[in-house]
Amino acid sequence: MDLLIKNGTLINSKENSRADIAVENGKITAIGKDLQAKEKTEIVDAAGKLVLPGAIDVHTHLAMPFGGTISADGYFSGTRAAACGGTTTVFDFALQDFNENLVDTVKRRDALAAPEAAVDYAFHVGVKDVHGDLLNSMTEAVAYGVPSFKVFMVYDFGVTDGVFYQILEKAKECGALISVHAENKEIINVLTERYLSQGKTSAWYHYKSRPEFVEAEADYRAIKWAKSLNTSLYIVHLANKEGVEMVTRAKEEGYEIYAETCPQYLHFTKEVYKREDGRNFVCSPPIKGAESKDALWEAIKRGDIDTIATDHCPFQSYEKDWGKDDFTKIPNGCAAIENMYPYMLAAANAGKISFQKAVELCCENPARIFGCQEKGFLSVGKDADIVIYDTNKDFTITCESMHSDYDHTIWEGLNLHGYPVQTYSRGRLVYDKGEFVGEAGWGKLVKRVPRVTS
Amino acid sequence: MDLLIKNGTLINSKENSRADIAVENGKITAIGKDLQAKEKTEIVDAAGKLVLPGAIDVHTHLAMPFGGTISADGYFSGTRAAACGGTTTVFDFALQDFNENLVDTVKRRDALAAPEAAVDYAFHVGVKDVHGDLLNSMTEAVAYGVPSFKVFMVYDFGVTDGVFYQILEKAKECGALISVHAENKEIINVLTERYLSQGKTSAWYHYKSRPEFVEAEADYRAIKWAKSLNTSLYIVHLANKEGVEMVTRAKEEGYEIYAETCPQYLHFTKEVYKREDGRNFVCSPPIKGAESKDALWEAIKRGDIDTIATDHCPFQSYEKDWGKDDFTKIPNGCAAIENMYPYMLAAANAGKISFQKAVELCCENPARIFGCQEKGFLSVGKDADIVIYDTNKDFTITCESMHSDYDHTIWEGLNLHGYPVQTYSRGRLVYDKGEFVGEAGWGKLVKRVPRVTS
Amino acid sequence: MDLLIKNGTLINSKENSRADIAVENGKITAIGKDLQAKEKTEIVDAAGKLVLPGAIDVHTHLAMPFGGTISADGYFSGTRAAACGGTTTVFDFALQDFNENLVDTVKRRDALAAPEAAVDYAFHVGVKDVHGDLLNSMTEAVAYGVPSFKVFMVYDFGVTDGVFYQILEKAKECGALISVHAENKEIINVLTERYLSQGKTSAWYHYKSRPEFVEAEADYRAIKWAKSLNTSLYIVHLANKEGVEMVTRAKEEGYEIYAETCPQYLHFTKEVYKREDGRNFVCSPPIKGAESKDALWEAIKRGDIDTIATDHCPFQSYEKDWGKDDFTKIPNGCAAIENMYPYMLAAANAGKISFQKAVELCCENPARIFGCQEKGFLSVGKDADIVIYDTNKDFTITCESMHSDYDHTIWEGLNLHGYPVQTYSRGRLVYDKGEFVGEAGWGKLVKRVPRVTS
Amino acid sequence: MDLLIKNGTLINSKENSRADIAVENGKITAIGKDLQAKEKTEIVDAAGKLVLPGAIDVHTHLAMPFGGTISADGYFSGTRAAACGGTTTVFDFALQDFNENLVDTVKRRDALAAPEAAVDYAFHVGVKDVHGDLLNSMTEAVAYGVPSFKVFMVYDFGVTDGVFYQILEKAKECGALISVHAENKEIINVLTERYLSQGKTSAWYHYKSRPEFVEAEADYRAIKWAKSLNTSLYIVHLANKEGVEMVTRAKEEGYEIYAETCPQYLHFTKEVYKREDGRNFVCSPPIKGAESKDALWEAIKRGDIDTIATDHCPFQSYEKDWGKDDFTKIPNGCAAIENMYPYMLAAANAGKISFQKAVELCCENPARIFGCQEKGFLSVGKDADIVIYDTNKDFTITCESMHSDYDHTIWEGLNLHGYPVQTYSRGRLVYDKGEFVGEAGWGKLVKRVPRVTS
Repeated sequence: MDLLIKNGTLINSKENSRADIAVENGKITAIGKDLQAKEKTEIVDAAGKLVLPGAIDVHTHLAMPFGGTISADGYFSGTRAAACGGTTTVFDFALQDFNENLVDTVKRRDALAAPEAAVDYAFHVGVKDVHGDLLNSMTEAVAYGVPSFKVFMVYDFGVTDGVFYQILEKAKECGALISVHAENKEIINVLTERYLSQGKTSAWYHYKSRPEFVEAEADYRAIKWAKSLNTSLYIVHLANKEGVEMVTRAKEEGYEIYAETCPQYLHFTKEVYKREDGRNFVCSPPIKGAESKDALWEAIKRGDIDTIATDHCPFQSYEKDWGKDDFTKIPNGCAAIENMYPYMLAAANAGKISFQKAVELCCENPARIFGCQEKGFLSVGKDADIVIYDTNKDFTITCESMHSDYDHTIWEGLNLHGYPVQTYSRGRLVYDKGEFVGEAGWGKLVKRVPRVTS
Repeated sequence: MDLLIKNGTLINSKENSRADIAVENGKITAIGKDLQAKEKTEIVDAAGKLVLPGAIDVHTHLAMPFGGTISADGYFSGTRAAACGGTTTVFDFALQDFNENLVDTVKRRDALAAPEAAVDYAFHVGVKDVHGDLLNSMTEAVAYGVPSFKVFMVYDFGVTDGVFYQILEKAKECGALISVHAENKEIINVLTERYLSQGKTSAWYHYKSRPEFVEAEADYRAIKWAKSLNTSLYIVHLANKEGVEMVTRAKEEGYEIYAETCPQYLHFTKEVYKREDGRNFVCSPPIKGAESKDALWEAIKRGDIDTIATDHCPFQSYEKDWGKDDFTKIPNGCAAIENMYPYMLAAANAGKISFQKAVELCCENPARIFGCQEKGFLSVGKDADIVIYDTNKDFTITCESMHSDYDHTIWEGLNLHGYPVQTYSRGRLVYDKGEFVGEAGWGKLVKRVPRVTS
Repeated sequence: MDLLIKNGTLINSKENSRADIAVENGKITAIGKDLQAKEKTEIVDAAGKLVLPGAIDVHTHLAMPFGGTISADGYFSGTRAAACGGTTTVFDFALQDFNENLVDTVKRRDALAAPEAAVDYAFHVGVKDVHGDLLNSMTEAVAYGVPSFKVFMVYDFGVTDGVFYQILEKAKECGALISVHAENKEIINVLTERYLSQGKTSAWYHYKSRPEFVEAEADYRAIKWAKSLNTSLYIVHLANKEGVEMVTRAKEEGYEIYAETCPQYLHFTKEVYKREDGRNFVCSPPIKGAESKDALWEAIKRGDIDTIATDHCPFQSYEKDWGKDDFTKIPNGCAAIENMYPYMLAAANAGKISFQKAVELCCENPARIFGCQEKGFLSVGKDADIVIYDTNKDFTITCESMHSDYDHTIWEGLNLHGYPVQTYSRGRLVYDKGEFVGEAGWGKLVKRVPRVTS
Repeated sequence: MDLLIKNGTLINSKENSRADIAVENGKITAIGKDLQAKEKTEIVDAAGKLVLPGAIDVHTHLAMPFGGTISADGYFSGTRAAACGGTTTVFDFALQDFNENLVDTVKRRDALAAPEAAVDYAFHVGVKDVHGDLLNSMTEAVAYGVPSFKVFMVYDFGVTDGVFYQILEKAKECGALISVHAENKEIINVLTERYLSQGKTSAWYHYKSRPEFVEAEADYRAIKWAKSLNTSLYIVHLANKEGVEMVTRAKEEGYEIYAETCPQYLHFTKEVYKREDGRNFVCSPPIKGAESKDALWEAIKRGDIDTIATDHCPFQSYEKDWGKDDFTKIPNGCAAIENMYPYMLAAANAGKISFQKAVELCCENPARIFGCQEKGFLSVGKDADIVIYDTNKDFTITCESMHSDYDHTIWEGLNLHGYPVQTYSRGRLVYDKGEFVGEAGWGKLVKRVPRVTS
């Protein structure tokens, strides 16, 4: 036994228990009352604290080229920040180059990530090009341990409905899960052009060119293709009320449709785009109105939002400023990788949701949906990705207190009651009371299992 | 008084009455008990017969270029056939050329139609190109008396969502109604290519490449754009159950969404495409399964289908044969212009719907929705477009007994109990007991009123 | 020809026309352009005016015993007031005595009505007692020309679900239509007792003891029994939003469920019960909140409310005052018989609905639904129940200007733009510019046809 | 450590793990890899077997007076049978006498149960009488550890809507959960009388007098009262499709509405009532048609059925025979207490649901919903109520192989693949390979915690 965390309250999604938790070789080996330490066992007293599984952030963009620059957090700073926010597994998007085999895509990005990652990581592959035999390389990627792919309905590298449909078909065949960024590209283009031509160039018009219905329609379409194939689908960063209702309906009808949302959609409303610093909030889809925000929380409560992830993709202030006079020049994305789990746990601490629900959304469901068999639960045999959480600690988010490389954050000044005090990655302490104590390269690629196909 | 039709039972959508009907200068001038004829008045005894408004077929393609040929019925033969089926107003589609002002489009087609038309006619303009100032020519067309336009979501001349959206916006502004052919082009392309590459080339694969969900998704999208603009929309040839449900829901929510279906979708099911002569039934959207057929009838009964029209676009057998070994080579379209009203009236005569409902679907609603103020009702002041219908006459549809120029019909052999015996166009007899007795050039362009805009 | 109304604009639900209308022997005999009067024909010039069918008020309580008194309008004063408001047919409720054959119930009330009625009238029979063979007297009543019955789910004479169910079954069998007053008696009792015991005795607690869900639940239950028997049902005085939604849904599903609402539910909201004179507004079900009011108007627009009627049942001020300190002592009911048609027509004149819709709700639908074959339409062969309406006349409702016997009205002070100027009952002038010019005993019992049973 | 179950696969609702499980003083004290036994620890090898929480049957009627007799299983035989079917906690209904304080009701029944119970047990109180101060005794019962009550909408001891409403209000106030038997009493009475009077007396008419809509309406009504009070509700033995849809909708809307169904509704269809021995299947509500059965399974899969329980209430054959010629004379109820958990686990073993889902429905949800904090989970600190399950064992249900006192079973002959081999109640072996090895009086009353009230 290497580590024994004693006297804490363990939280899993269905129940809490007062118990000790023992770790050996990076795995949880026992949970029990009064477990006995061995000679060299490090003992940690978690009395009065919560002991939680580490979070899994299934949506980040590290070292991501976008709009002529690259996102502010690389694999090291991003995963370092994750560790300090209690997130012990990070999913990044490996975006296919044209004419690239999808396994090569993974390997290309893995080469960057492996030496830098401070916590475990995994990849979804962003698919752009399925011509010739490339579609079949999905099967190879699944075999390689990467059974999840993403398609974009927007951006110049987005796919047509026809390509999307073929990717869903192939995914069904090879046991993969498809994620989708759902917005209607054509309507965005028309509205964007119009606003620019009218001299309406502020961040507010980022929202105005991608209002609720632009996302809702694409949600419908994506779900429709999945239903028509009777296959699964995962909608990333769901932000609008009507989309939420569609997901609820699809689940009700028995379809395996998953929905993710992000802290920014749960906390802010579209009015932020009217602020002086509105451009700092620019991400796509944009943050929506209060009705959508409320609908997301309601869906969380009734179980129709499956996961919380961040879409972490920060840019520096000078880059955001490129769009001061033209919202289309603002690099899209915000920071959240270090904030997600603390934010959701603080919501639990405040009674808005239960801690069990927070763990379900941030740990268990991501693990289950994306096939991380060793992650997401505090149970015997799983990786010892563990967070100790102090329900009494007060914390104010500031850019300086974060462990990323960005120079501003939309969360500046937010007070959280309750905060993580330690994070363990496979039994190794990586974060301790405000300090990162891990190392680049500790994190390993998480190979995952495909879905069962029938 | 020029004409006095005595002793018939007059049918309007809300009530029947036993009364005489007097006509002068092409208009209905009186309805009453025991009206007195004047000296030169022609008296027609309609005792035991129904007296109905002439039908308005708001969806035909006469002299229509398609797939390297032209539809088999021109303006004369098409309107001649219409007259012989009790249809006294025919809407044709004038399809814009690239870079063409929309009023010019109307005039170009009107030049062909005017000398040939045997009954009154009107145009919808099919919009392809809105670049530069062309969008504004919609307003000109409305002023010219053509306040209805059509967009296609399929075909190479179809429009993107962005263009569709702009057309809807302009329509709202200028009081026009937009019709839409709703199918998803991208999915059709993928499925078509696949079936061809697999050697699946029969007419059955015309259906298989455009199944229910391909139409349903596009219905949703089209309705979504209309809703987002809070404007009206008219869905042509609605053929799938889910689309019907969406129309019902949209009406319930208070949106002005109209739906048209065609006799072929009410009578046949997709199984026809498995027949030896399946290609003769090829039209787009294809005829769907029995569930969709049943849903259409139910929607008719509860008032959620607004109009019946034909999508009349027949091709000769040798042209249909081009697609014998490749369903993509089959010119799309079937004949119905002479069959629609008799078919719906026979359904009424058999008790499936009421005669009042038949008149509502084929006469009143088309007139009301498309702004034909002089048409569609048997009431004082309207054009004397009148049909006398014998509920006891049996009729078997054969290609020979029709008054078109095509050489086959999907309706061959169908027995109808009850049939029109006379048709009057503005008081002039144009069809009499099986014979066309009208003339080319009698028909006039119906100028229409725009919708009220707020 | 006895009467010729010239130059008016005739309104039916589907279209308007400028035409003359001729009357002979109490029937409409011709509608036409420039109809020629005969020697003794009285000619009325309606130029610039609307010519409308007389309204049919299918819900009144004349000379109705309730709460130890009798409603303020008897058969003469009530029908006199109706005539002066453009209502030419009045349905009264004949409430069965225990152990009374239902035809006897009709005859008993008819004996009172026949000598007094100033316009035509009909009866629904309120059924209380179906023991022994009494249920079968429904069939006799249908044969007698009274094919409509009412059940109450509240009041001490209300029926159980079991009796209600049997009445619906019998109605299906004999071609009758059942009306229902739908509220949950048990919940009302509990809430009423509670408020009284808490000293909450003002009119506001009339509303509080019968809030929205009390009506909604009963609507559901009533519809459920009708659906389970696949038979028709007519919900009287529907006043709550959720009930409206249920009616919409049932219609959508193809059930023949009709809904009536009343002017008081369209004009006022529950806040009236907080007024000093709140007790004057006490009726059951009580007037609901603004959401319900809005939902009723929306339902009218999309066609899910079928009829407007009044539930006319006024009481004198001193009687209303009995409940000053105990809302359960207030006789239930308000005046509206003279106000309904002017109110709805003024709504049309103001553009809130169309005149066609007003006529559909107040004339055509009542006639169609309740089997009055001679009423409800301006068409040849129908009874000459005709109203001439001046769209420019301003009118302020005051108790004095009404033609009833009550001493106050909830409509006091309401300004209407547009007002009826003449009413004809079967061709006889009964109201002329503010004056009643008819006579007691002119009105006849309208015998009606049963529904077609299958 | 008293007991160490080694090498099994532990199942909780969210995940499985291969681990040992240690028990001391009746509690689970540790779960871990290679846990070390102490000197006197009994070691059980569960290699190749599943280790499950014991089931909680929240709906049984032991020693229940009904229809002039008493149900065939008393507290000893019933709980003995439960133990042998892997059920370690049994909820019985203590039915209030008129004028009885509800704590007295519990004590009265507990006096019978305590000396006999072979496994732990709890009570819901069936409320009949709330007059005077009796309603307030609900609060006392909650304080006594009995925070759940039941109302019946049927039977002569059923409550009116008004009483039901007051009970829900009180429950909200004192943190209790109300269960409801939902059927419409009045309609049942009418249909029953009719069938009897028509000589339709076979078991089939038990179903015919309580068809789907009779249950659906009452479900709606019950849910309506709960919604109107914004409080929780638990529907027992939900058996009809429409009710399922209502529960789904209510959950979607955010209401805390729970639904239970029973194995008989999941396995049989109404056709059993046409069998010679149809009376043996008579229970209320009756088993419904295949559509309802399918809907229940679908709802289980999507999470809208919360619990499985038995409504165990067997009667002897001679008692069932009382109703041979009159279905109203058949005592209502069937056996299932020993079959529920094996049935659901066999469904899991066959792949119809997951083992995790079976455990959620039969263990975790009952514990969570009804406040059994020590039960329902295999986790440290919980009661060691443990079942060892052999997925390879085949078992055929026969009356002889059961451990109840009844003389026939509706499950006769059913083959189950997979079966429990041991049951532990608080660490004590009570069932071992086909044999009951426990004792009367071992079982204790489970005191429960109230719901959090706001």
